Amino acid sequence: MTFFREYEEDGIRQWADQIQNGDNRMIARAISCLESGDSRGEALLEELYPRTGRAFLVGLTGAPGAGKSTLTDRLITHLRGEGYRVGVLAVDPTSPFTGGAILGDRVRMGRHALDSGVFIRSMGSRGNLGGLARATREAARVLDAAGFEVIVIETVGVGQSEVEIMHLADTVALVLTPGSGDAVQVFKAGIMETADLFVVNKADREGAARLVRDIEEMLSLVKEEGDWIPPILRTEGKTGRGIDELWSGLQKHRQFLQESGQWEDQRRTHLRRELETIIEEAMRTHLLREMNTSAFQRDLDRMQIRQESPRRVARKWLDRLVGGNPEGGGT
Amino acid sequence: MTFFREYEEDGIRQWADQIQNGDNRMIARAISCLESGDSRGEALLEELYPRTGRAFLVGLTGAPGAGKSTLTDRLITHLRGEGYRVGVLAVDPTSPFTGGAILGDRVRMGRHALDSGVFIRSMGSRGNLGGLARATREAARVLDAAGFEVIVIETVGVGQSEVEIMHLADTVALVLTPGSGDAVQVFKAGIMETADLFVVNKADREGAARLVRDIEEMLSLVKEEGDWIPPILRTEGKTGRGIDELWSGLQKHRQFLQESGQWEDQRRTHLRRELETIIEEAMRTHLLREMNTSAFQRDLDRMQIRQESPRRVARKWLDRLVGGNPEGGGT
Repeated sequence: MTFFREYEEDGIRQWADQIQNGDNRMIARAISCLESGDSRGEALLEELYPRTGRAFLVGLTGAPGAGKSTLTDRLITHLRGEGYRVGVLAVDPTSPFTGGAILGDRVRMGRHALDSGVFIRSMGSRGNLGGLARATREAARVLDAAGFEVIVIETVGVGQSEVEIMHLADTVALVLTPGSGDAVQVFKAGIMETADLFVVNKADREGAARLVRDIEEMLSLVKEEGDWIPPILRTEGKTGRGIDELWSGLQKHRQFLQESGQWEDQRRTHLRRELETIIEEAMRTHLLREMNTSAFQRDLDRMQIRQESPRRVARKWLDRLVGGNPEGGGT
Repeated sequence: MTFFREYEEDGIRQWADQIQNGDNRMIARAISCLESGDSRGEALLEELYPRTGRAFLVGLTGAPGAGKSTLTDRLITHLRGEGYRVGVLAVDPTSPFTGGAILGDRVRMGRHALDSGVFIRSMGSRGNLGGLARATREAARVLDAAGFEVIVIETVGVGQSEVEIMHLADTVALVLTPGSGDAVQVFKAGIMETADLFVVNKADREGAARLVRDIEEMLSLVKEEGDWIPPILRTEGKTGRGIDELWSGLQKHRQFLQESGQWEDQRRTHLRRELETIIEEAMRTHLLREMNTSAFQRDLDRMQIRQESPRRVARKWLDRLVGGNPEGGGT
């Protein structure tokens, strides 16, 4: 047994080394393992975790059709020109690995296929948003350990579900387009506050100036003094105009975070939230398992004939689940 | 101490008796206690729970402006004519006790103020949907114990959040209006399946026939054979037309549930879900408290300098939280 375990540990270490050396095939395999919940993924992550922390995680989010893929593509080219290695995680919470986004990703992957300094990967939801956020977070760690200096996490949508995924990025750019009504939607969804940069893409279209004014106005409602003031940048994915300003805007925000001491604070907040999510999900799994026991069914019986109230039964199970902790019993 | 506790128990019992005798002032006080989390509310609920189970819980949901209040008002009058006592809980997840709905409720309350066979109450969210669903569920129990034979739970909206509140109703009627585009929204939100009856209100308007056809078409996509087939009823809240058909439709569904044995099954499912929600929320509170301890902060430190991985730390805390239960440790 010991022999095999050591053998396996050696295998995992070797795999981690290959990843660190930038072997894209091994990176892809690692992400697949993490997505599918393969136990080797966990062991690998343990090995990789100490090797992470250097990458700049950029979130790029916006409604479908806002032009995020084209923008990312331009950004890749720009960053490659400056010598950076770039990882891209294209996340679509609405798609289980099918549909247009993936087709678009294939085209992109094809274009950068011969460039080992670029790694592009699509992440679909398989119906579970929590799982997707976690897989994306861990995939980003693999890319980080592999030495990609910039990792772009591109998500479709402007709702609360995208916000969860954005919680792993250091800097979040929100992509909006003229005439789309996106700005109002973003404001309503309460995600205005999560953007560090606003990107008005397709800025050659009518209504771009109006959109900039709208964003400014809404920003003035939500931002407090002393905060980072999110710049509003104009880009044209089609021509590549504004991409250098986008990159310098992203860098400025990183610099702001680092100089103000918020960089580490924010990463700590993200870690805290990650833990909260993992533990909560596991507690939930545990609870659902308990709820399938015959003891629980008997309590349901008793509640149904009104011998015991839901609050009392809840309290009893809570004591059992988080037992030994008197405060845990309060509902 | 014993004397006072007994005295208090007597007080609670007396209060419960007053509620059972239909004292609307005491009912209102009970619901306020439950809303505010007053501990007497819990004791009262214990006392009342065995006295519940007879009421028919009707959910009435639909977009703002669909005419639910007018419809409910007509239904009250109709049911009073048949000798039933009627409770109404008007739930607005978007409003913290202010705005139009409440004004409308006041008008209604005024109209039925002298009729002790009617009890109308507005329930607002105070920002916490889980809390609202729970307060509504418990308020319904108070009304049930008070002998209201029909309890209408009226909620604004056609989204997932309304679905949660609807989980306490025996029968759910979804109110739609011609030309509103509601039907498509309902379909998209995946709540088509939760309706036991469709009510096309303002049926004198243009597009009513079209809306009926749309609903039929969408129903054919989601309903399976052998299921209850939701009738599509036409009403005019303004004139009261169709209200008797609405009531007979509601009764038919109740009869269907009872004869098919689904009545108790569904109530059991609702109880199960209620427990799950209460326990989960309390576990979450417990977790957040643990996350504020210095031991947890030290683990965050270690994660931040990459001495320990999030998965490992999560596993440790999970073991601690749902300890003594080896399966509880898996993430």
